Amino acid sequence: MKFDDLKAEAYEANMQLPALGLVLFTFGNASAIDRDKGIFAIKPSGVPYADLRPDDMVLVDLEGKVVSGRLRPSSDTETHAVLYRQWSTLGGIVHTHSTYATSWAQTQLDIPILGTTHADHLTVDIPCAPVMDDEMIQGNYEHETGFQILNDFKRRDYLPEEVEMVLVANHAPFTWGKTVAKAVYNSAVLEQIAQMAWIAHSVRPDVPRLKDALIRKHYERKHGKNAYYGQE
Amino acid sequence: MKFDDLKAEAYEANMQLPALGLVLFTFGNASAIDRDKGIFAIKPSGVPYADLRPDDMVLVDLEGKVVSGRLRPSSDTETHAVLYRQWSTLGGIVHTHSTYATSWAQTQLDIPILGTTHADHLTVDIPCAPVMDDEMIQGNYEHETGFQILNDFKRRDYLPEEVEMVLVANHAPFTWGKTVAKAVYNSAVLEQIAQMAWIAHSVRPDVPRLKDALIRKHYERKHGKNAYYGQE
Amino acid sequence: MKFDDLKAEAYEANMQLPALGLVLFTFGNASAIDRDKGIFAIKPSGVPYADLRPDDMVLVDLEGKVVSGRLRPSSDTETHAVLYRQWSTLGGIVHTHSTYATSWAQTQLDIPILGTTHADHLTVDIPCAPVMDDEMIQGNYEHETGFQILNDFKRRDYLPEEVEMVLVANHAPFTWGKTVAKAVYNSAVLEQIAQMAWIAHSVRPDVPRLKDALIRKHYERKHGKNAYYGQE
Amino acid sequence: MKFDDLKAEAYEANMQLPALGLVLFTFGNASAIDRDKGIFAIKPSGVPYADLRPDDMVLVDLEGKVVSGRLRPSSDTETHAVLYRQWSTLGGIVHTHSTYATSWAQTQLDIPILGTTHADHLTVDIPCAPVMDDEMIQGNYEHETGFQILNDFKRRDYLPEEVEMVLVANHAPFTWGKTVAKAVYNSAVLEQIAQMAWIAHSVRPDVPRLKDALIRKHYERKHGKNAYYGQE
Repeated sequence: MKFDDLKAEAYEANMQLPALGLVLFTFGNASAIDRDKGIFAIKPSGVPYADLRPDDMVLVDLEGKVVSGRLRPSSDTETHAVLYRQWSTLGGIVHTHSTYATSWAQTQLDIPILGTTHADHLTVDIPCAPVMDDEMIQGNYEHETGFQILNDFKRRDYLPEEVEMVLVANHAPFTWGKTVAKAVYNSAVLEQIAQMAWIAHSVRPDVPRLKDALIRKHYERKHGKNAYYGQE
Repeated sequence: MKFDDLKAEAYEANMQLPALGLVLFTFGNASAIDRDKGIFAIKPSGVPYADLRPDDMVLVDLEGKVVSGRLRPSSDTETHAVLYRQWSTLGGIVHTHSTYATSWAQTQLDIPILGTTHADHLTVDIPCAPVMDDEMIQGNYEHETGFQILNDFKRRDYLPEEVEMVLVANHAPFTWGKTVAKAVYNSAVLEQIAQMAWIAHSVRPDVPRLKDALIRKHYERKHGKNAYYGQE
Repeated sequence: MKFDDLKAEAYEANMQLPALGLVLFTFGNASAIDRDKGIFAIKPSGVPYADLRPDDMVLVDLEGKVVSGRLRPSSDTETHAVLYRQWSTLGGIVHTHSTYATSWAQTQLDIPILGTTHADHLTVDIPCAPVMDDEMIQGNYEHETGFQILNDFKRRDYLPEEVEMVLVANHAPFTWGKTVAKAVYNSAVLEQIAQMAWIAHSVRPDVPRLKDALIRKHYERKHGKNAYYGQE
Repeated sequence: MKFDDLKAEAYEANMQLPALGLVLFTFGNASAIDRDKGIFAIKPSGVPYADLRPDDMVLVDLEGKVVSGRLRPSSDTETHAVLYRQWSTLGGIVHTHSTYATSWAQTQLDIPILGTTHADHLTVDIPCAPVMDDEMIQGNYEHETGFQILNDFKRRDYLPEEVEMVLVANHAPFTWGKTVAKAVYNSAVLEQIAQMAWIAHSVRPDVPRLKDALIRKHYERKHGKNAYYGQE
């Protein structure tokens, strides 16, 4: 049955988060979407990873309403729903409080592009969406978190297919991809980039951004028309 | 028998400390209390975790006197006793010398609230109780350590049910909770918060505190009347 | 058959990289050369280490052309080929994006020689080859990366037998050795040196370089005519 | 046979070093002494820990001359011999290049006493013996390293029974104890203290030293006449 596969996919992605050292306790969640059915499977709220089973995944529609599941979905479900609704190319979303990315989010600063590890994955600084207005926070907070991300990308003129990660100021990172496996990958990559940007910045506070030619080259060799990284 | 359960509970909590990377050698201890009997079970002093067995836990009354046990209790037993005596809602207490929290304690500074990981757990900076006067140190030191914590909370007007962690200046953290399992959880959360506050501070020395609306929102969604995090 | 041994040697070296904590996902590659045949074996591009088998290694000649192999070779193959071609004493090459060495590469600074751990392995600061000109980047990039390293060594008058590691500015480290096992060893040593140089620099920003007599002594006891380290 | 026990003791201590994360590859060595016989057992030079067997330990007399063993002893053997000869209470010595302690050694600074984790083990800053004169380095280097430590303790008026650890400037730490197991323990404690001193210093560059009353209290409760830490 289709949703069993979807649940299994979301489960496997969630289990990768502690395996990759990206979550402490229950501080993270992953979801995978079935675009044909308009349904996504997401981690239940507050359940320890060690206790999690594929069947615990909660099925939710694009309005953020639970369709099926014994458990309450992640408290960040509304944010996932908003992003899936507005960005139709997303197949999976991951949210963590991983150490280095979250530390950068706390600074409210973008993570500057300093090297080719970064440029292999995106051509711009990793955006940090600004802190929300008090009204947004007091309103439908998780819903507004999604819009804060959408608006930040609109303001910067970024496409979610080209920039698959964001920091939410004072909060933590969200990543996504065509599949939830790619979103998990992006979470780990972001964490690595965040750690190295911190160290480089610590060694040399005036560390310069990567020059344009190098940004372009590394991104093109992995993602351009004539990409020559990987096996396809 | 009741105390076997209490010893087992304290034992399990103690064993979590090295598993979570919070202690080196014997640098930590956990205790669990039976409020009906007024007895708590605590780790024996200086025994390596690898050698520890449930039956090694020492039973102590609220005056800090050993009730039962072949071994000498933790040298911090008196501090546990003072906190249990004065704060009747505590079910368990944990003391560690975990790396990041202890480093902050050495700075004698509160850990500023910089993000939602922090706000999910408490709404204020993590308090650092000041260094004791020389007389207190030379007196009944562990007893006074407990009072130093109590007095700091009184001065700040904090409730131990709302702020379940403290740094003791130049020393190390203490955490607590309704159960000792919650106290262990709080120790790991504190360590994570301390690490991220350090990194954020290193990237941006003038990193701003979290705004009030966000502090309130995150705490409420986990702990407020209309909490919607977790399964209950 | 000879190339089976070569593939096995390259495979073992590649598998050491995640084991030593030097690569995330596929961010690294190792190659081993058969000097008699003028053929080297290198990791295929973008294949996860968990899926890698000895027979997946790609055989490449000194012009960088694939001689045998079902898979596309590492996108850095051209860099390996250039270094093998120009430096005839190299038996193996390793490229990683290891955390601390890559962070230093992002600063565009040499890693200063601060201690005997460094001096046990080389007598000079670990060189950081400068960022390439835009034309080099837009041309045959991986080819030019090799020449950037060669030219930097020429400019500094360094011999690849004496300095077995380099940072490429904004990119990441390359290491080499008489064997690929030595190149792997050098990658781990470089990572350790880079981490300690960062920490020392953080504690004391004006940390002095190692004095000449100590540099000479430590290098000589391991590598000089009267070396007395190790068993030969 | 007596020396089998001594070799086993030295072997076990050496194997603890990688298990505790204190050495990379072969960058460390431990020795244990039989005071009655005036013989110590030490790790052979440059042998990987994974290949080490108890019988590989080399027996050396107090003049630093090999008494028995198929392999060449550690290149630091002379330093061990000098310390054993001059300080008759030492039962074991450990030398590592552990990350944080070695980083501090590279700064040529003492590690300031900032907290009770430090005070539980010694009452003074962890001394950093100064860089040697060029003549000492060019002479019998490992012999002089031992004397550099002895002279630094003499100058500071420290007893090796009270201060069981030292940094050698630009080099790395040495620790010792009544037994080699205690020396291993001291190496791990030193590493932890060094890491926390770095972080505290990074958070607050003007972090104050621990006040005298607290230094005295913590040391006394573990090591004083009326010590009440541990089981004896």
